[in-house]
Amino acid sequence: MSGKFIVIEGLEGAGKTTARDCVVAMLREQGITDIVFTREPGGTPLAEKLRELIKQGLDGEKITDKAELLMLYAARVQLVETIIKPALARGAWVVGDRHDLSSQAYQGGGRGIDAQLMQTLRDTVLGAFRPHLTLYLDVTPVIGLQRARARGELDRIEQESLAFFERTRQRYLALAANDATIKTIDATQPLEEVTLSLKRVLASWLVEQQ
Amino acid sequence: MSGKFIVIEGLEGAGKTTARDCVVAMLREQGITDIVFTREPGGTPLAEKLRELIKQGLDGEKITDKAELLMLYAARVQLVETIIKPALARGAWVVGDRHDLSSQAYQGGGRGIDAQLMQTLRDTVLGAFRPHLTLYLDVTPVIGLQRARARGELDRIEQESLAFFERTRQRYLALAANDATIKTIDATQPLEEVTLSLKRVLASWLVEQQ
Repeated sequence: MSGKFIVIEGLEGAGKTTARDCVVAMLREQGITDIVFTREPGGTPLAEKLRELIKQGLDGEKITDKAELLMLYAARVQLVETIIKPALARGAWVVGDRHDLSSQAYQGGGRGIDAQLMQTLRDTVLGAFRPHLTLYLDVTPVIGLQRARARGELDRIEQESLAFFERTRQRYLALAANDATIKTIDATQPLEEVTLSLKRVLASWLVEQQ
Repeated sequence: MSGKFIVIEGLEGAGKTTARDCVVAMLREQGITDIVFTREPGGTPLAEKLRELIKQGLDGEKITDKAELLMLYAARVQLVETIIKPALARGAWVVGDRHDLSSQAYQGGGRGIDAQLMQTLRDTVLGAFRPHLTLYLDVTPVIGLQRARARGELDRIEQESLAFFERTRQRYLALAANDATIKTIDATQPLEEVTLSLKRVLASWLVEQQ
């Protein structure tokens, strides 16, 4: 099997880290050893600098929605061109903690940026590049934020209102419903159940790829 | 006269700073006192951070052309939305050291980014927002870089090849030829001559606005 790009998506506290470890363990069981991890925004020195600016903001300056979106795409294209595409080209697998679907959901759904603008920007910047599989961990904002809060301090994005995360979740669900490469997993279940669902979905997808 | 946005453009060493001082002096002579200066990329704390990243780069990491372009637009939209538009709305004049034409010339012409992509990005991010007047100081790369070198160390952009700056200049000239709001001034002349040309162009434009 040639390398694939698998992305894990979901609200804060959906369980993305646990899911990533589970995906990697399953890939290793398949004899896949060349696995590259990415996280977005981030994953290169430049992209991590942009992540820092996006996450923390600057004292006294509100980052406009469009500036935030463009910084996210700057970080994304840098990561795609310098890390993800070269990895796939040599046959490696790439497991990503978030990718473009996050922007579609958070900036498009949460912040309400015009859908046409979002699509134009994505197509302009990324062309036809898309993940082979996206595992969307669906969780309600209340449950997700409870888990995120338990981990410690909240960043600028995590301090958004519940309504923001509800809009984000609805956009995730709507996009997943119209894209066969996005698999929705109920992440409100107990952790063991979530992991079982994830394993079933990934195992069946891996069989399809052979 | 309500506030206007006047931009000064040109290659490194074209004489933009002298031109800016001259523009401001002429505006003050007209009784205009509320004048806001901007520079791009930059002009807000966030945009200045992005400027730093773009100008200096990161050790060992090549910034991709698209990431650079998106960072420039992130900085630009932040400046336009939080500084330039509010200033114009209260009736102030804005004098800018570079604006969108720089991206069109450097990234579109110099780096050779697809013209359709450049136009889509501009329209998507800025909508119909444009400067009222752009004063383009036209200088050959050889003369411009001699002047820039005399000022000290060169940054990442200024270290580009002469061919890069020649492509940039040709794009500036081509865009200026097709846009009545861009006035080209021969900046290869001695400084006093450049200042005289600039004053003539600006004086005649100011009369037209009344």
